[in-house]
Amino acid sequence: MSPLPEHVHPSSTSFPTGLIPTVGAAGLPGTPGSGAAPAVVALGGGHGLSASLSALRHLTDRLTAVVTVADDGGSSGRLRRELGGLPPGDLRMALSALCDDSEWGRTWRDVLQHRFTSEGSLHQHATGNLLIATLWELLGDEVAGLDWVGRLLGARGRVLPMAAVPLDIEADVLGLVPGDPGATTSVRGQVAVASTPGQVAAVRLVPEDPPVRPEVVTAIAEADWVVLGPGSWFTSVLPHLMVPGLLRALTSTRARTCVTLNLAVQPGETDGFSAEAHLEVLAAHAPGLVVDAVVADPVAVGDVDALVRVAESLGAQVLLRTVSVGDGTPRHDALRLAAAYRDVFSAPAGHGAGRGGG
Amino acid sequence: MSPLPEHVHPSSTSFPTGLIPTVGAAGLPGTPGSGAAPAVVALGGGHGLSASLSALRHLTDRLTAVVTVADDGGSSGRLRRELGGLPPGDLRMALSALCDDSEWGRTWRDVLQHRFTSEGSLHQHATGNLLIATLWELLGDEVAGLDWVGRLLGARGRVLPMAAVPLDIEADVLGLVPGDPGATTSVRGQVAVASTPGQVAAVRLVPEDPPVRPEVVTAIAEADWVVLGPGSWFTSVLPHLMVPGLLRALTSTRARTCVTLNLAVQPGETDGFSAEAHLEVLAAHAPGLVVDAVVADPVAVGDVDALVRVAESLGAQVLLRTVSVGDGTPRHDALRLAAAYRDVFSAPAGHGAGRGGG
Repeated sequence: MSPLPEHVHPSSTSFPTGLIPTVGAAGLPGTPGSGAAPAVVALGGGHGLSASLSALRHLTDRLTAVVTVADDGGSSGRLRRELGGLPPGDLRMALSALCDDSEWGRTWRDVLQHRFTSEGSLHQHATGNLLIATLWELLGDEVAGLDWVGRLLGARGRVLPMAAVPLDIEADVLGLVPGDPGATTSVRGQVAVASTPGQVAAVRLVPEDPPVRPEVVTAIAEADWVVLGPGSWFTSVLPHLMVPGLLRALTSTRARTCVTLNLAVQPGETDGFSAEAHLEVLAAHAPGLVVDAVVADPVAVGDVDALVRVAESLGAQVLLRTVSVGDGTPRHDALRLAAAYRDVFSAPAGHGAGRGGG
Repeated sequence: MSPLPEHVHPSSTSFPTGLIPTVGAAGLPGTPGSGAAPAVVALGGGHGLSASLSALRHLTDRLTAVVTVADDGGSSGRLRRELGGLPPGDLRMALSALCDDSEWGRTWRDVLQHRFTSEGSLHQHATGNLLIATLWELLGDEVAGLDWVGRLLGARGRVLPMAAVPLDIEADVLGLVPGDPGATTSVRGQVAVASTPGQVAAVRLVPEDPPVRPEVVTAIAEADWVVLGPGSWFTSVLPHLMVPGLLRALTSTRARTCVTLNLAVQPGETDGFSAEAHLEVLAAHAPGLVVDAVVADPVAVGDVDALVRVAESLGAQVLLRTVSVGDGTPRHDALRLAAAYRDVFSAPAGHGAGRGGG
């Protein structure tokens, strides 16, 4: 027995596709026509996006990941500085999460995810980052390069960068000036922002209005659902909404939007942030964005009524579902999260999804 | 019109398979049964082996490359020092030469052969070297890792290392002591030996008796033909004969042996070496090895009679064929070399191949 309370709606275990409008292919190359599955675009980065994709792949292969390109740390940061292209790490992780479930797909995923360990300059470089950087140099086109890695993995879906140029994240951070808790300090770089001991008050992108690949705009326009989160809120989820070309696509699509909240606060970045505060800061960064559904795990919600109030102010219904692995770590379970998304996607349009456990 | 004299035997353009005994599969995974084509093992390294494989792939897919693992320079040398495994560069080049002739095969070959250019630590690393090193770390088995790269490329054949451990080449070199032309100096490392300004008098391997993979022994035992050269004579061709386990396999197989001579002397390494001197030094390093055929381009043979005399002393017939690209550079043309090998392989056993142009 799980020690966690179960807030699971009684619902059909089959996917009620009749309720989901089908709006054409999401641009997945080589995907067999599967009119029954929804076209889904998942936005994010890092482990959060991987969790989302690992769940969504159970529901559809009309899947597009739109991935942050603001990483400046680790293997990606070094490649960005040495070779000058987009940071490949988050894109690699998203592709790996979509690999074909065969010996072939899993082996090449393991190759992509492999990190060297040495006393030398390759230490901690991920092989997939080097492979992606190679394809970019060879083909001169980031999307074409990512599509080739997708073909290598037999990926169930397509992975695209959220901007066509590398981005930097810059934040105003409170609490870094001793004796002056109201003073803000400007902190630059995804690593610095994600690990700041202060409280993030506002986030900006540099450049402010980066170009967006047309493949991204098309995927969002043709989607049935857009999924935001889970993930590092200020550095992997909100940045997408700060790209003007991406926000325009998100506010003009017929797709409905689901926000998946994190299972735990990010030490530093979102210390002291309640579940509803996550929604509020998201809304503040995305004027005009309508949210249809919010997926939250009961363990991560202190005040259910407060969360519901904020969600409804954005037009969204809350789904309370146990979606964590359940071992105390803040990790999403792919099948539980898939079941939650199935409930989200099967809700009738205009009514949102039902609040579980009410 | 080629300015070079043509020494081409009149011969059938079809492959007279009836004359070639078929001795079972050469251990190529996934190769469709093709009893008509000869099983060939090509020994060497670097550009010379690539040239041989680029020719042989036109004649057979029962092809095994046995590749030097003594490189200590460039990307391979750095990987060998940083990660501690076999140097992957010559293996990568051999695999690339065998790639499937399709958009898929050529793209992944180009990825493998790609070298980074930067001001940083990745400069001149070949992506394929990093990919091979990753598979070795992941699978813990060099041959399994190479087979996976072969599957990625759709390779026409299999690529194996000539020894199961990294090797070092050590040479006694004449002419490095000013005023004492008879003094020998010990020079260690493939790069140092291949580029010495002195004259190489003898070559050793360190360790002297390295382990040989059973897949190599089996491939040689089951081959119809073994091909030695072209390539850097002292550092890519002769080292195979200095591995006792490999020489035992070569002297005990029923396969016939073809030696392909270089188109030009290697500055330093083989300065002043005549075509027949190449054969003599090969014989000196391989007691008991019977040679059946020698392929030589007329431009690289100063004294045809001397070459024939030495070849016959080893049991071999000489095939004089124009096998160079013909633009003045010492590069083999894949189709011309394929035509020469076809003539070699179609010669009746025990009679060697006919001397062209006589």
